[in-house]
Amino acid sequence: MMEKYDVIVVGGGHAGCEAATAAANLGSKTLLITMDMTKYGQMSCNPAMGGIAKGQIVREIDALGGYSGILADKTTIQFRMLNKSKGPAMWSPRAQNDRFRFVEEWRNILENTDNLDLWQDAVIQLIIKDKKVTGVKTKIGVEFESNTVVLTNGTFLNGLMHIGQEKLAGGRIGEAASYNISEQLLEAGFKTGRMKTGTPVRIDGRTIDFSKLTEQKGDEGHYKFSYLPGTETKLKQRSCWITHTSAEVHEELQQGFEDSPMFDGTIQSTGPRYCPSIESKLVTFAEKEKHQLFLEPEGENTIEYYLNGFSSSLPWQVQLKGLHKISGLEKAKIFRPGYAIEYDYFDPTQLNHTLETKIIDNLFFAGQINGTTGYEEAGAQGIMAGINAHLKSAGNNDTFVLKRNEAYIGVLIDDLVTKGVDEPYRMFTSRAEFRILLRQDNADIRLTEKSYKLGLASLERLNLLQEKTRLIQEIIDYAKDFSVKPRFVNQLLTEKGTSELKQGVKLFDLILRPQISIFDLIEVITPFKTFLGRVPEVRKTEIIEGAEIVIKYEGYINREKLLAEKLDKFENINIENKFNYNELKSISTEARQKLDKIKPKTIGQAKRISGVSPSDINVLLVLLGR
Amino acid sequence: MMEKYDVIVVGGGHAGCEAATAAANLGSKTLLITMDMTKYGQMSCNPAMGGIAKGQIVREIDALGGYSGILADKTTIQFRMLNKSKGPAMWSPRAQNDRFRFVEEWRNILENTDNLDLWQDAVIQLIIKDKKVTGVKTKIGVEFESNTVVLTNGTFLNGLMHIGQEKLAGGRIGEAASYNISEQLLEAGFKTGRMKTGTPVRIDGRTIDFSKLTEQKGDEGHYKFSYLPGTETKLKQRSCWITHTSAEVHEELQQGFEDSPMFDGTIQSTGPRYCPSIESKLVTFAEKEKHQLFLEPEGENTIEYYLNGFSSSLPWQVQLKGLHKISGLEKAKIFRPGYAIEYDYFDPTQLNHTLETKIIDNLFFAGQINGTTGYEEAGAQGIMAGINAHLKSAGNNDTFVLKRNEAYIGVLIDDLVTKGVDEPYRMFTSRAEFRILLRQDNADIRLTEKSYKLGLASLERLNLLQEKTRLIQEIIDYAKDFSVKPRFVNQLLTEKGTSELKQGVKLFDLILRPQISIFDLIEVITPFKTFLGRVPEVRKTEIIEGAEIVIKYEGYINREKLLAEKLDKFENINIENKFNYNELKSISTEARQKLDKIKPKTIGQAKRISGVSPSDINVLLVLLGR
Ligand SMILES: Cc1cc2nc3c(=O)[nH]c(=O)nc-3n(C[C@H](O)[C@H](O)[C@H](O)COP(=O)(O)OP(=O)(O)OC[C@H]3O[C@@H](n4cnc5c(N)ncnc54)[C@H](O)[C@@H]3O)c2cc1C
Ligand SMILES: Cc1cc2nc3c(=O)[nH]c(=O)nc-3n(C[C@H](O)[C@H](O)[C@H](O)COP(=O)(O)OP(=O)(O)OC[C@H]3O[C@@H](n4cnc5c(N)ncnc54)[C@H](O)[C@@H]3O)c2cc1C
Repeated sequence: MMEKYDVIVVGGGHAGCEAATAAANLGSKTLLITMDMTKYGQMSCNPAMGGIAKGQIVREIDALGGYSGILADKTTIQFRMLNKSKGPAMWSPRAQNDRFRFVEEWRNILENTDNLDLWQDAVIQLIIKDKKVTGVKTKIGVEFESNTVVLTNGTFLNGLMHIGQEKLAGGRIGEAASYNISEQLLEAGFKTGRMKTGTPVRIDGRTIDFSKLTEQKGDEGHYKFSYLPGTETKLKQRSCWITHTSAEVHEELQQGFEDSPMFDGTIQSTGPRYCPSIESKLVTFAEKEKHQLFLEPEGENTIEYYLNGFSSSLPWQVQLKGLHKISGLEKAKIFRPGYAIEYDYFDPTQLNHTLETKIIDNLFFAGQINGTTGYEEAGAQGIMAGINAHLKSAGNNDTFVLKRNEAYIGVLIDDLVTKGVDEPYRMFTSRAEFRILLRQDNADIRLTEKSYKLGLASLERLNLLQEKTRLIQEIIDYAKDFSVKPRFVNQLLTEKGTSELKQGVKLFDLILRPQISIFDLIEVITPFKTFLGRVPEVRKTEIIEGAEIVIKYEGYINREKLLAEKLDKFENINIENKFNYNELKSISTEARQKLDKIKPKTIGQAKRISGVSPSDINVLLVLLGR
Repeated sequence: MMEKYDVIVVGGGHAGCEAATAAANLGSKTLLITMDMTKYGQMSCNPAMGGIAKGQIVREIDALGGYSGILADKTTIQFRMLNKSKGPAMWSPRAQNDRFRFVEEWRNILENTDNLDLWQDAVIQLIIKDKKVTGVKTKIGVEFESNTVVLTNGTFLNGLMHIGQEKLAGGRIGEAASYNISEQLLEAGFKTGRMKTGTPVRIDGRTIDFSKLTEQKGDEGHYKFSYLPGTETKLKQRSCWITHTSAEVHEELQQGFEDSPMFDGTIQSTGPRYCPSIESKLVTFAEKEKHQLFLEPEGENTIEYYLNGFSSSLPWQVQLKGLHKISGLEKAKIFRPGYAIEYDYFDPTQLNHTLETKIIDNLFFAGQINGTTGYEEAGAQGIMAGINAHLKSAGNNDTFVLKRNEAYIGVLIDDLVTKGVDEPYRMFTSRAEFRILLRQDNADIRLTEKSYKLGLASLERLNLLQEKTRLIQEIIDYAKDFSVKPRFVNQLLTEKGTSELKQGVKLFDLILRPQISIFDLIEVITPFKTFLGRVPEVRKTEIIEGAEIVIKYEGYINREKLLAEKLDKFENINIENKFNYNELKSISTEARQKLDKIKPKTIGQAKRISGVSPSDINVLLVLLGR
């Protein structure tokens, strides 16, 4: 009765929306089924995108032709480039977003995507024939046929929420959970487990005493997520506000520990170690006298604030008492208390690198269902699953997999499918061996052409990329060629605290100095400024900064590139019984211990052990004479 | 732990939002609890406000200082003044609305209302002590104390949805139902029953063949709902589209009748006779070969269309097959099928005219819970319940009740509490005895001063009202005084098909002619035009039309006013055994039968019998020598 689809995506969260649009944009007849069409890409927790390592992922999704970056831009109510004072590998874009607009923009995009049909309903069963998925059944009794199915159920599978001793079934507060699917997959042979995550109280901004808080404004700058022009936010920019817990607050909260589902054994599942509840922080960091908290506005106009850092499943009375001891929040009224949620996930080692399951053909998993946490991690898996479901449905045996040295997305998926997870997985820069390669400024250079070849990234993106790489190269060539006379720059150099020139040098050598940026030099070297006139105004920062990073960090970048290639090349070299790791002084202690314990058979296996870095591996290769 | 409230409103639908803002604006410390803060004032069914009789209600809510009119204006994507060709008692404003913006605007208003706190949660129990409500308990375990509680649970109490043989628990598709409250009230002695309503498929606009449909554009005009300036829509205006069912469509649908929950006995509860499902229409009007259907856009930008007139709980396959036989919808894809929902309501004769229950003190009911249907009916009850809950909480024994000759809202509530309901109650002009008094143009004149005295309508509203009444009176006086010479107007009179003047007459007498409007006369009588220069440009239509209606219909209006006063005056006259109704030839057949059957004791009781009109009562009074 219904037409047969190439790809069905179950769930309209961050993973599902990216998956569905990717598949449809590649030409697959796609259906996105979700329980509530007013909640596409709902931010279940904090109203923000990006941040350290996560910001890089958003830019990668964008470079591939996904939408998370565009939406994050359009709905920005505060933007900051984090870690700007550190090396460019650490620069991480982060936006505070209007959560209502975010949902609206997703809906807008979905509605305007060709080949994409939308359906509001809950999937309650997969149709599986001979270990191959062929469709889904829904709660209202509809059967849809499809070549492939992508499951992106998020925190909804048998979701159970906790607030103190109260338990509420549901996938998110106010929303129903999803049943039957886990049970069916368990029966089909999948391993499943429970994880937990949590969220803090939402506060009525009219009851906050801002005079006691520290204001945190956004950057004035011109950064954004998307490489495309025209995605700039038009929304009013808003500040975040900083406050702290205190001994008094901690005391109040501790009163509730005996009724805490975290501590009385009710919640057995693992929560995110790096985004813990306030009660976990009080236990784990018992010596800390205060914890920083951020009050983040939930939208351009709303009075609702999110209290970042105060996630909790303590009884609501306890949360409220603790809250009222916080400076500035003495009289705070809330819209609802924080809560924890437990949900089913599936051990991601049951997946191939394409995110297709090993047990059921043509079935893909993406997002929180794989044991990750975070919108960005979910969106990244979504676009990859969408691409691979499309390829699988097209039946030409192609797959699309990113390597660890190509993208954080590559690191993410490789970590998931090879190492599995024992707590909700979120991305950190430390998870990437080749951090200096995986920067936020060059995600397009790393990924857009690949995606264009696939048919996903648009010609516009390719043109922008080519313009950018050409201009960067021109700047570098110019800098290598152009000689600077001392009298033009010595004043600047002195001001910036670096030694004066005695004689002319190449512009390139000046740019190499850490204290000096191209933007300084433009002001004093007129021909350079004139030359840079060729860079389109809207992309000036992006392109000049791109050139500067390449110039300044060329050494590091090339070293990492070579190392990455070397490791790839020697992937299959046998190292079984070749080393007594305990005696290797030139590798890190952690690597020594892990290698000794795991005793990997090949270089490839060794390099995938977490805690073993590429330079540790390089030591082994050198010892082997490579 | 939580502060004690004056008024707690349960449910953030149309009734709840009006109730909460009214109480808070009057100064009561108010709490609005609703299950999902992203769905304030959600339009469960068609994205439209107003219409015949309902449009008058919206203007009355506005005149009282409520928000439904303002929101309907701001979110208008098409506006029409219905029945403009009929007498002004029948003029009814109607807007097509952007459903997303409507919710957003409600939220915005709620967030900016002083004295109003918001809480996201489900109420699962009332706290009742000695037959008096003192608070509520919620699903997440919070207890809130309050002087009064207003229940506005809509279609959520034990809600059960039907699509063919599939049954889904829930309050609206994708939303959870509300449990325990009905059971508690039943135990407390309330009578409860089940009602049903339904909604049609939602269609993907990209799959509609508009070339086969008839376009229906909105009015060009300057009408809107709110009496306040500045509420004009800024949204792009959109068209609706008309199509029809056909014998072929009916045939397809009839195939599904045996699996229809409406016909196989599954749904026993009563649905709205005047807004029936398509399957009911096929049975009730078996002779009709086609039914008109309207495709209504759901928002300014969305591709979603609502198929007005095609409400159904037939199996989804049957709905879809029928749909595909409709001209223009042969290839339509849908986002979800139509469904019916059954829910608990409470017999409204258990309420006082203040909407407080007779059984539990300080407990008020408003909206669909009272057996009504429609956003406007819900909003109207909401504002009245909010006002009365405030007054009750303030403890000064005041009540705020509107009479049948003052407002449709008066008719609505009087009908509910005196006659009860045996099907979902919606407003019609025929329910009002004093239709010519209860016009859409004069809701402010009827109600704003009353509400201002109460403290709800703002001074701005009062000023606008006073300006309007003063200007209308000035226009009337001018018209009575000003003499028109034949040569200025005879050409116009001929063009309009009415007899020429032989000699000068008063302007007033010309306006009395049905063919002639003030707007015509302005063009030919320069002094009149100059005089009308004093009317502020933004209110020109409103005020001139107001004056014209008073002039043209003065006779009718005065007669109804007198009659209304007479009926009020003789309310308590005893008529028991005074008449042999069967012999009264000068009253309507319906009145004759009803009076004979019910044998009312007083004029008051007689006039409240539905089907007995004020002029029927007048006949009785005349016979009694009054
Ligand atoms: C309370 C809470 C706190 C969180 N805290 C944090 C945090 O502090 N930091 C952080 O990084 N992340 C946090 N997260 C996680 C973050 O929200 C998720 O990682 C992210 O939303 C995952 O995206 P997703 O697309 O995988 O799933 P989700 O965003 O959960 O979306 C799942 C979607 O699938 C739909 N769906 C589910 N089952 C079905 C079905 N059977 N049929 C049809 N539709 C279905 C749902 O309606 C929903 O739209 C939190 C989540 C929650 C709920
Ligand atoms: C499927 C469907 C079809 C309809 N068709 C029509 C139609 O054709 N024509 C027409 O005129 N009207 C129709 N209606 C009716 C119209 O939607 C209602 O009349 C109107 O919305 C009633 O407003 P309300 O405020 O009384 O309730 P609702 O709009 O139903 O709002 C109730 C609110 O209360 C909240 N709530 C409920 N219980 C609790 C609780 N225990 N705790 C906290 N919050 C709670 C809900 O979340 C919701 O926000 C239809 C409704 C539905 C569901």
